[in-house]
Amino acid sequence: MEPSRWKSLPLSKAYQLLEPGPVVLLTTSGKGRNGRANVMTMSWHMMVEFEPPLLACVVSAADFSFAALRQTGDCVIAVPALKLAPTVVRIGNCSGRDVDKFEKFGLTPLAAEHVAAPLVGECFANLECRVADTGFVKKYDLFILEVLKIWIDPKQKNPKTIHHHGYGRFVVDGRTIRLGSRMR
Amino acid sequence: MEPSRWKSLPLSKAYQLLEPGPVVLLTTSGKGRNGRANVMTMSWHMMVEFEPPLLACVVSAADFSFAALRQTGDCVIAVPALKLAPTVVRIGNCSGRDVDKFEKFGLTPLAAEHVAAPLVGECFANLECRVADTGFVKKYDLFILEVLKIWIDPKQKNPKTIHHHGYGRFVVDGRTIRLGSRMR
Repeated sequence: MEPSRWKSLPLSKAYQLLEPGPVVLLTTSGKGRNGRANVMTMSWHMMVEFEPPLLACVVSAADFSFAALRQTGDCVIAVPALKLAPTVVRIGNCSGRDVDKFEKFGLTPLAAEHVAAPLVGECFANLECRVADTGFVKKYDLFILEVLKIWIDPKQKNPKTIHHHGYGRFVVDGRTIRLGSRMR
Repeated sequence: MEPSRWKSLPLSKAYQLLEPGPVVLLTTSGKGRNGRANVMTMSWHMMVEFEPPLLACVVSAADFSFAALRQTGDCVIAVPALKLAPTVVRIGNCSGRDVDKFEKFGLTPLAAEHVAAPLVGECFANLECRVADTGFVKKYDLFILEVLKIWIDPKQKNPKTIHHHGYGRFVVDGRTIRLGSRMR
């Protein structure tokens, strides 16, 4: 669990983690009025720019994380592998208003380098992000985030991510195919 | 290939098709100054609202489809299954400026109900969309689309989608797991 064993990945590779559409966790710090760090489950995210890497995500104004994201201006996107799937669902089924989710689910919050939000020790990838544009928050709860740092846990080899199809039905990564592409 | 055999899916299920992050095709009509229908490959998309279903996607200003999308205000998002993967990559490797991609790749354009852009006969799902908001186009090439109609091909059973990890490396849908979730 020591972050010291983690490797930093070039920012230009952020899209290789997020573009395939995995279910992710979003953490926020306790710096805002909410007062405690929180973690939520999220599938509504996409890449917007390769480098510096920008992504868009939707965090509902009804979510406990929304106020923290607005007030603190930063978050971490953590990518869980299959083993964490049951925990990921339980995280999505309760609110940080009622419970300390890091404690309840035995997740390890680790200090990030550039942001106040915690990394998740159990995830194979953690992306430190700052809110870069709130122009679409009022209309769509849509945040533009800039990725500042990417951490990879080299001990989690070939992690399989999960993809949500609704109501707790997830498709797990299957085989990899390679097709000659000129596009990154 | 008759669209008559296709089933219409309730709009509230759009998210079940797009939230898992499949590589999709985006078609545009020849109504704009471009003059011909076109199809591009896209992975930068996400859901924004359940119902009426809104999605966001990034179509680069460098893409031939960009002008058509701006001028005509509509498009189709078509979801290809594994069998089409080699074609999907070839579609991404050339431009509609140089070639009629429907003809070149033997794709069947079919008339949509609400939009001028064509459905793709070979895809297992087709979503008719209109551009709902261009407020983030100038800054990020980001379009907000509203889904008007969803078509499903019932002959393609349990289609496996593909997820792009960069440079022509794709992960194919594997097994499905079900975990009790209170969230849709």
